[in-house]
Order: sequence, then C-alpha cells, then structure tokens
Amino acid sequence: MDKTLVIALDAMGGTGAPRSVVEAAAKTCLRYDDAAFILYGDEAKLIPLLNKFSVLKPRCTIVHTEDTVLDDDKPSVALRQGKTSSMRLAIDAVKEGKATAVVSAGNTGALMAIAKIVLRTLDGIDRPAIVTPIPTMIGKTVMLDLGANVECSANNLFQFALMGNAFAKVVLGHNNPTIGLLNVGSEESKGNDTVKAAAVLLKETKLPLNFTGYVEGSDIAEGTVDVVVTDGFTGNIALKTAEGTAKTCRNFLRQAFTDSLLARIGYLLVSRSLKKAFNKLDGRLYNGAMLVGLNGIVVKSHGGTDAIGFANAIGVAIELARHGINDKIIEEVRLSQDLSPSMPPSTPSLDDTIKIA
Amino acid sequence: MDKTLVIALDAMGGTGAPRSVVEAAAKTCLRYDDAAFILYGDEAKLIPLLNKFSVLKPRCTIVHTEDTVLDDDKPSVALRQGKTSSMRLAIDAVKEGKATAVVSAGNTGALMAIAKIVLRTLDGIDRPAIVTPIPTMIGKTVMLDLGANVECSANNLFQFALMGNAFAKVVLGHNNPTIGLLNVGSEESKGNDTVKAAAVLLKETKLPLNFTGYVEGSDIAEGTVDVVVTDGFTGNIALKTAEGTAKTCRNFLRQAFTDSLLARIGYLLVSRSLKKAFNKLDGRLYNGAMLVGLNGIVVKSHGGTDAIGFANAIGVAIELARHGINDKIIEEVRLSQDLSPSMPPSTPSLDDTIKIA
Repeated sequence: MDKTLVIALDAMGGTGAPRSVVEAAAKTCLRYDDAAFILYGDEAKLIPLLNKFSVLKPRCTIVHTEDTVLDDDKPSVALRQGKTSSMRLAIDAVKEGKATAVVSAGNTGALMAIAKIVLRTLDGIDRPAIVTPIPTMIGKTVMLDLGANVECSANNLFQFALMGNAFAKVVLGHNNPTIGLLNVGSEESKGNDTVKAAAVLLKETKLPLNFTGYVEGSDIAEGTVDVVVTDGFTGNIALKTAEGTAKTCRNFLRQAFTDSLLARIGYLLVSRSLKKAFNKLDGRLYNGAMLVGLNGIVVKSHGGTDAIGFANAIGVAIELARHGINDKIIEEVRLSQDLSPSMPPSTPSLDDTIKIA
Repeated sequence: MDKTLVIALDAMGGTGAPRSVVEAAAKTCLRYDDAAFILYGDEAKLIPLLNKFSVLKPRCTIVHTEDTVLDDDKPSVALRQGKTSSMRLAIDAVKEGKATAVVSAGNTGALMAIAKIVLRTLDGIDRPAIVTPIPTMIGKTVMLDLGANVECSANNLFQFALMGNAFAKVVLGHNNPTIGLLNVGSEESKGNDTVKAAAVLLKETKLPLNFTGYVEGSDIAEGTVDVVVTDGFTGNIALKTAEGTAKTCRNFLRQAFTDSLLARIGYLLVSRSLKKAFNKLDGRLYNGAMLVGLNGIVVKSHGGTDAIGFANAIGVAIELARHGINDKIIEEVRLSQDLSPSMPPSTPSLDDTIKIA
C-alpha cells in the first residue's frame, strides 16, 4: 500500500454541503485505499452523517468550526474576517503539512484569495490560475486560466503555458503536449497586444514547449491542441459558453424525443447509445479544477455538484498529489529561468489577490 | 409593390463564390419581389452562371472587375491596394447611393476596414461593431461585438449597447429589449475595469435602456437577455466556442445513432423530430452579421456558407434596410447625446480601422 494521502475537505462549501462532501469522501474510500480525510465544518452536522458511512469513519478526522465563507462574500472580506472558516482552516492544513491537498466547493474568489495569501505562489509564478481538463470531440483539452485573473500580462500568459504544459503531462499523460493561445483568428496579425506579445514569448523561448500558435473558440471543443492558454476573463466566459451551449443541445434533444409517440419509441431504442456518447459531457465526471501555481494542491469543485461530482474533484486532488504536480511545475519554471534568466521574479501582492473573478 | 431595393453583392467573396452568391441572389428573387442586385466580380464567370437563373437575370446588373480581396490579405493591404476589388466596388456602390446595402462573404477584417473608411461611422459612434442574432434555448439573442474591435473602452461598450438595442428592436421585434453586459460573474464586484466602467455608464444613463446588469457565458445560450454586449475579442471567442460546442454535440449524436443496429432503427423513428429541434442551430439559417455603426448597411456572410446561407445574409440586409435600421440607431444616439451631452464625439482614425480581428 502507498503512503497515506491526507486530503483536507471544506465540508461546508457548495449547495449540497455537508452531505455531498461526506458522501463523496466515502465514495473515495472505496476507490482509493490510501486516502484519509480531515473534514472542516460543523461537528453537529458532520457526526450524524459520518455515522452513516462506516467505510469513512476510521479514515476521517473532524475539525469543528461554525464559520463558513458564504457564496456572496467578497474575497477580501472572506480573507480578513474568515480566519476560522471551514475553507480557511482546510487551506491552513495544507500550509501546516497536515494535509497534502485541499478540496472545496465554496466561493471561488474567496478560495483563490485565501489560498494565495496562505500558501503563496510557487517561485517564478506571479499569479495562480484555474485549470481543468475539458471534454472535446476527440478526448480532453487542458484550459487555463478559467477565471482567477481577469486581467493578464503577456508574461502571465507565458507562465500559464508553462503550468498548463506540466498539468497536461500529468493529467493527459502526453509527453510533449501541444499548446495553443486563444485568439480571434489563427493569422499572426490577429488579436490584441497582450496576446501578440505572449505569442512572441512562446515562439522565442528556448524551452521545449510545443507551441503551435493561435487557436480559436471552435478549437476548444474540437480538441485541436492539448493546452489552451488564455486570460481568466476570456477563459471563464468561453468555458461557461461551452457549458451553456451543451446544455441547450441536451434540451433540444429532450424536446425532440418527446415530440411524438414515434420519437418516444425511437428514444427507447437509442437511449443506451446516447447515454454512452453524452456521458463524456457529464459535468460531474470532469468536476475539479486546480488552482495551479500555489505551494500546495488546491482543487475547486463546482458549487452545485452532487456527491459523484465532488468525489471526482477529490479524485483529481489525489491524482495530482500522487503525480507530484507541483514538483513538475517547479521543474518547468526552473528550466525557463535557466534558459531566460531575465524573466521578472514573482511579485505577488494583496492587490492582485483581490482582483479575481 | 414596395420601392425596389438594390443590394450590392461582392460576387467573389467566400469559398463557394461566385456560384453560391449568384444562386443565393436567385433564391432571394423568389422571396422578395422588390429586390434587385448589382453583382461585382469577374464577368467571364458571372455571365454563364446568370444564364442559369432566368428569374435573376432581369433584376441584375454585373459590374466587371478581376480584382479580389483574398482571405489572408491584411486589412490594411486590402484597403490601400484593393481599390478595384469586388469588395471595394460593392461598398462604394452604397456610398454612391447606387445600392442600399452590401453583402459580402469575403475577408472580415478587410470588409470592416474598407467599409469604415468608405462609409465612415455614424455620428456619435466611435467604432462599428459586428452584430448578429444567435439562437438560444428560448429564441434569439442579439450579440455584439463579434470581432470588429479586439480592444474596447467602456464608452465603446456603451455605444454597442445603444446599437444593440436598436438592432434588437428591429430584428427581434421587442419594444424594450433587455440588455446584459458579458462578464465572469453576475455580482457587482466581478470583472475587469472596462466592464465595470461600462456597467456604471449603462446604469446611470437617463436613456430608457433596459439594462439588467452582468450576464455570464452560460446566459448566451440560455437566452437570459435580448442583447449581450461585449468587446470583439471576447465576443468572437464566445461565438466560436458556442459554434464548436454545438458541432461537437451533433457529432456525439451522430456517433450515438450509428453505434448499434438498434440505435439506427431508433434514428429512423426520431429523425423528423430531431431535425425540427436542431434546425434552430443550423448556422445557415442565422447567417448574416451586420457591421453596425456605419453610414450604410453592410452585411457579412460566413465565408464557408452555401447558397442557402448566403441567401439568408441577403435577406438580413433587405430586412434591415426595410426597417430603416440606421435611422433607428441614429435616433438612439441622438437621444443619448441630448441626455448626456458630455459624451465624447466620434473620432475615427485609420489606426483604429486596422486594429480589427
């Protein structure tokens, strides 16, 4: 058996919490022999839940707190006032070495702000980013930033490419992932100044990055590249646009299958194949985005997900920890600094932290 | 019968040109009694095509030119060197009052650059934008800018809202369209400085604009508002992301229906209903984006569309002309200037023109 991996769980974050969190932890016990948990949250609510899942009980510690970061709390408020919140204590556990990773379905902005202040960014990384693999026509594509930074410099985008590269190696298992920069066209003349400057950095770097140039919105779903790099404003909107469109397609499909008796019978015949094809788009199965670029593994679960989705996010945290994601990122950054020592050093500030989506 | 509406057609733009353009004009003759055409392009290619469509011949004039703007021409090059191109001559026709509107499936950047220099922007509008109604779960939403301006100020976004409002009144037939500003979240604290400043302008204006606040990427497909306002970088990427995702869904569907014999039989039963539901997503049926904010009606067709799609773009131009779209926009702008006379005047420059997607 591997060494036990301890995961800190914000048991109070997300609409289904704490039930979905506890149930997800129990599911994870069945999948991973080496996982153990610290649950941060309201003991009075957690103990009765824990009693229902005998598999989880021996592998779980509860740290009681009554404070919770609310979904509409401003990140700056959550940061300054929520020092005993379940989210904060779970992140502190990673900082203090009590846990290897933290998973939360709570307020994204607050999670990013607190994680950045508590864990600090990795050496050579100015800003953390939100990254996740998303389903495409032919597999999965890693995309970042999905909303941590609404304004980015060319250098930020370059660092996102480094982190995305390491992340894709671990998560997609590709040796030399292809990297594209999201833009309004594939020609060199296209785009704003930041994107053009980032393209120059990516083209001219001596790092063995497999940068293939610009990609467009349609390339995300087509899976043209393994890593799509963009700023957090565009990335967040693109991701949510894709999710909204997929939902609309599913609704049109539902309409079609209830449109007539013939269609209803047709559905019975095709439902099994449909489920197989559309399972790839089930948001729960790719739930769990990493806040990449921090000294510690922080995974954000979708706030509205259920136990299956949250269990998937825990699985993401475990796999990233097992594969030493941060060591791989540090390696990429160190290599880039050796090759271009003029890269400006990391300069995180509180002001940066609060400017998050 | 109404007064004849003359439409100038760039017969050489787009992958199917000139055949798809001529065929589309013929289709339009069957739909609109009052439409006539000037075709700009290579006579040697156009005359044999025209001979095939007897309905079109009496309503059509050819203006010969051998020059064509290529898809990879830089806008600045097309502008300076393409003065006898089919695209340029078709736009000139609107300037000279020979035609009421122009439709082209050629290079978007060149079309925008040439149209802006030849037609100039409307009084009170600093920059044209690309606008089109897109299909949603419950109907259609007008979205702009879709790629004309990769960098926008808050004032640009405010002007896009004015133009989108007038456009939605004409195209969607709504008296008081709801307007949303595309952002990474719906809370006031979200977004970059430009979006926040635009939200203040839209909230504080004394104009009767039905501004409902921020919308997210998922709201586009859900049809939450009638008008989605955004910069051309984000808008272009969001539109293409939605198109790519819809295409992926159709592919998954195709996979499902060919997965087994049972599924194939199921398809036969459901195909009619499916077609009905997914027709709403047929790109050809909403082909035709207006370059809004110019002294003249300029409609851009998708470059890869067929005769059905191009005919739809011509239909868009005709409807916009019939409904006096530009008079309605001028009215909105004038009202906004009366109510807030401090709004900076229009200051178009060549430099602006070339910075297009």
